[in-house]
Amino acid sequence: MKQSAVLIPTLREVPADAEVKSHQLLLRAGFMRQNASGIYSFLPLGKRVLNNIEKIVREEMERAGSVEMLMPALQQAELWQESGRWYTYGPELMRMKDRHSREFALGATHEEVVTSLLRDEVKSYKRLPLNVYQIQTKFRDEKRPRFGLLRGREFVMKDAYSFHATAESLDDVYQKMYDAYGRIFERCGLNFRAVIADSGAMGGKDTHEFMVLSEIGEDTIAYSDTSSYAANVEMAPVVATYEKPSVQEGKLEKVATPEQKTIEEVAAFFNTEASQCIKSLLFKVDDRYALVLARGDHEVNDIKVKNYFEASTAELASPQEVKEVMNCEVGSLGPIHLPNTIEVVADHAVKAVANGIAGANEEGHHFTNVNPERDFNATYTDLRFIEVGDPSPDGEGTIKFAKGIEVGHVFKLGTRYSEAMGATFLDENGRSQPMIMGCYGIGVSRTVAAVAEQFNDENGLVWPKNVAPYHIHLIPVNMKNDDQKEVAEKLYETLLDKGYQVLMDDRQERPGVKFADSDLIGLPVRVTVGKLAAEGIVEVKVRETGESMDVSIDELQDKLAALLG
Amino acid sequence: MKQSAVLIPTLREVPADAEVKSHQLLLRAGFMRQNASGIYSFLPLGKRVLNNIEKIVREEMERAGSVEMLMPALQQAELWQESGRWYTYGPELMRMKDRHSREFALGATHEEVVTSLLRDEVKSYKRLPLNVYQIQTKFRDEKRPRFGLLRGREFVMKDAYSFHATAESLDDVYQKMYDAYGRIFERCGLNFRAVIADSGAMGGKDTHEFMVLSEIGEDTIAYSDTSSYAANVEMAPVVATYEKPSVQEGKLEKVATPEQKTIEEVAAFFNTEASQCIKSLLFKVDDRYALVLARGDHEVNDIKVKNYFEASTAELASPQEVKEVMNCEVGSLGPIHLPNTIEVVADHAVKAVANGIAGANEEGHHFTNVNPERDFNATYTDLRFIEVGDPSPDGEGTIKFAKGIEVGHVFKLGTRYSEAMGATFLDENGRSQPMIMGCYGIGVSRTVAAVAEQFNDENGLVWPKNVAPYHIHLIPVNMKNDDQKEVAEKLYETLLDKGYQVLMDDRQERPGVKFADSDLIGLPVRVTVGKLAAEGIVEVKVRETGESMDVSIDELQDKLAALLG
Repeated sequence: MKQSAVLIPTLREVPADAEVKSHQLLLRAGFMRQNASGIYSFLPLGKRVLNNIEKIVREEMERAGSVEMLMPALQQAELWQESGRWYTYGPELMRMKDRHSREFALGATHEEVVTSLLRDEVKSYKRLPLNVYQIQTKFRDEKRPRFGLLRGREFVMKDAYSFHATAESLDDVYQKMYDAYGRIFERCGLNFRAVIADSGAMGGKDTHEFMVLSEIGEDTIAYSDTSSYAANVEMAPVVATYEKPSVQEGKLEKVATPEQKTIEEVAAFFNTEASQCIKSLLFKVDDRYALVLARGDHEVNDIKVKNYFEASTAELASPQEVKEVMNCEVGSLGPIHLPNTIEVVADHAVKAVANGIAGANEEGHHFTNVNPERDFNATYTDLRFIEVGDPSPDGEGTIKFAKGIEVGHVFKLGTRYSEAMGATFLDENGRSQPMIMGCYGIGVSRTVAAVAEQFNDENGLVWPKNVAPYHIHLIPVNMKNDDQKEVAEKLYETLLDKGYQVLMDDRQERPGVKFADSDLIGLPVRVTVGKLAAEGIVEVKVRETGESMDVSIDELQDKLAALLG
Repeated sequence: MKQSAVLIPTLREVPADAEVKSHQLLLRAGFMRQNASGIYSFLPLGKRVLNNIEKIVREEMERAGSVEMLMPALQQAELWQESGRWYTYGPELMRMKDRHSREFALGATHEEVVTSLLRDEVKSYKRLPLNVYQIQTKFRDEKRPRFGLLRGREFVMKDAYSFHATAESLDDVYQKMYDAYGRIFERCGLNFRAVIADSGAMGGKDTHEFMVLSEIGEDTIAYSDTSSYAANVEMAPVVATYEKPSVQEGKLEKVATPEQKTIEEVAAFFNTEASQCIKSLLFKVDDRYALVLARGDHEVNDIKVKNYFEASTAELASPQEVKEVMNCEVGSLGPIHLPNTIEVVADHAVKAVANGIAGANEEGHHFTNVNPERDFNATYTDLRFIEVGDPSPDGEGTIKFAKGIEVGHVFKLGTRYSEAMGATFLDENGRSQPMIMGCYGIGVSRTVAAVAEQFNDENGLVWPKNVAPYHIHLIPVNMKNDDQKEVAEKLYETLLDKGYQVLMDDRQERPGVKFADSDLIGLPVRVTVGKLAAEGIVEVKVRETGESMDVSIDELQDKLAALLG
């Protein structure tokens, strides 16, 4: 395409309200513009990246056996009332009324619509499994839209839903979709991890998030430095083992610690390490209380506590609750001399503490020479957050941390929706069963931003070839020079014929402007037609490496084939 | 794709509320399902047709130099207030509020959004012309959604907008888009006409509607039986000429016609033809009145009256107004003995009436032997509707009528939006000018229905190759027969490798069910693997013609190449 015909409004200045690189650069390079908070127009270059990603998604969905359809954005309130989400989704679900005052939701997601469709159309196990997807605009009225396309209110999503007669069939399709997601983000050029995630309150089992590694990510990932293991930091089990040092067990002794409230203060007071202290936390687990112990240098993971107790909720008790239940302040809690009604559960690391320090359940006092199995009873299990340097749970390598942007999510939904909405089928024995479901999402417009976030330098964007808006930026330095113009025009046609996607800068701008815009836009290869045009020589520059070379036009095809594959 | 993995819920019965063929068949053949009134899900087959049409649209838009982008569905109310349409669009424009109670419109069309974008980003004639398009879901809360995809509340549209510094530039792009539209609908296989249309109240000049010819269309098209001329019946000029018969002019005579009110009654009373009567209609033209004359057998075209007077409105006066202004009833109006204040304008045909009949402007009386130029003065011009049998306005052939479904619209908008919204540029002389705009729409989902409406027979849909969801329906008659299954599986792979899109009916259904579903779905070619499979022979059947033939597998490729090109 000739650049004069394409709307690419580049900006020299960094827009004031754009905090992150991708947001800044997609605005500066003219890929998008904001219409309202969290609502954007994709300008021509942005739309081409979006289309490239959609194409990759479609190809991999088809390969995984998912079939495309298109459901409406306008969804009747009644469907959301059936699933219950009309009442629980909150203001993020955009709602409106039609001319007859019937209520609708603007699709934030399509579980309800697709479940009602399958409920009506599929009655027998013979028609299962089915796996459908769509690429569609979604609406979520985020409280704080930010980071441009990374958290918007109107965005493009690929959502897929699978329906099964058996859990094995779901496992099979889940794996196929998981593999497809890996291929999709790989083809986009992204540095990502498939991360074991929290299945939340959905009642699902397996769930993985696909996280693009990035400083600006909102989630922390624990990953192995040698294997492919990765998990949301909240989900990673700790497999570290601890050996109790073989020292003489000292005599349990109560010591006044009038000013020492925190682990750090207590450790300092006793002139020892935090790891010698036993941290004691009172949790409210559903309707009862439990004392949770961890080593002083470890963090207790609420989710592990909740899971251990198989509870609906598990939260730290408030200072007031601690006072009421234990008759002391938070900083003096400990596992010794406890009421029988309080269950004690401890992280494995606690067991290996020798002659440690613990609260005395008495205002302003601690015990020293605490030896867990001698001085108190507890159940030992994995209760702490994994940490950098811990052994990887899969047994390979050690754990590192990274921040991630979630671009995809695969999820075993189970029967959450099919039960609520009566989507049943007759099994081989003629019995009515709820369909077993999986759901699979990709933030397509978010992926545009994720790529931009990972691929840029101080001069602008650096698109990987598979998603770049065009392959080649063809730049005649001076459009008033007949040689340059003629060579460029001819090259343009030739390169198009060869199947390259070419953006030709036919504007009458100064070379400095053209080159700066070109770097900002960030196509993989730049072909500059300059002073040596008359001699049949052009310059080829690789955006990623900055490498540039003079190439004769005769050899240009080979050079481009080598660079662009 | 294997049919077992695709959701194609066919129906034997015609759905009760589906009035037209396309609606019935798209439901019956499992291409779509209704979610709410005027809101549909495209099931996999329907989505493939939609995708095929979108692909054709994209290719032709690019060829015409239009560049793809994507604007949001959520549009701030402020934009629509600037253009004024927030107040004039009525309940068809769907409106809602976000969590902060800010008002939004759901995009029914995007003139406001694109104009505000260009206003912000384009300041100089050097950046014009620009031509952008998008393919996007649109929302219009139709009062009476009907005919399935033909008039829905949520639908897919291609809308393009061009911006120009000069009228000539708009003319040039308008022609390119007009040509592209012709190619698009031709590639879809449609029988259509580009029809000269009413530019309405938009202040635009040229406008063409692309109409698919169909009995169920809501618009009447006047077209030439030999040339490409076609116009909305309201827009076609009449170029017929009339010769006054050379008869002796009789004496003007007033006759009592106490019971004769209509042209038919008057003609019968005088034992003559309606064409001998002069029809006299009082029009209110803006703030004044005018008498409009036509031959008794002709219909006066309001739009032509309005255009003649260059008026904002031109409507028939009410009986009460007639009484007040003319002191007689509607049925007695006539051009003789009129107040001077009433201008008389007559259709050309009136001039050739000899010894005709006209109202006497006196309750219950008519004149006979009326001879226009002798008995009254009038301005003669083209004021009537064109009729079947009239000469075509382009001088070639005679006029026929057809009904049409509007699938596309190209429109010279002019400065309607750029003036209202301040989208100006600096011209070569540094003067600020409003951008001149064109807009160009295609009902993409409506086109799916238009193709279905034109291509079907008593057994189901008959898709033209370019838009068919798959090229080939491969049907093993009995999946339990190993020969058939093996041959079919092998053919499936071979045909996919050759680049054909193949739907293989791998279901364990009776042959009758498979064939009936196959006819209903309507892929161009069916390849049946039956009893002769073991001998290497399959049946090829052409859906359109019903022609079928046994073909050896060795020759199948050649046969398919001949049939599918």
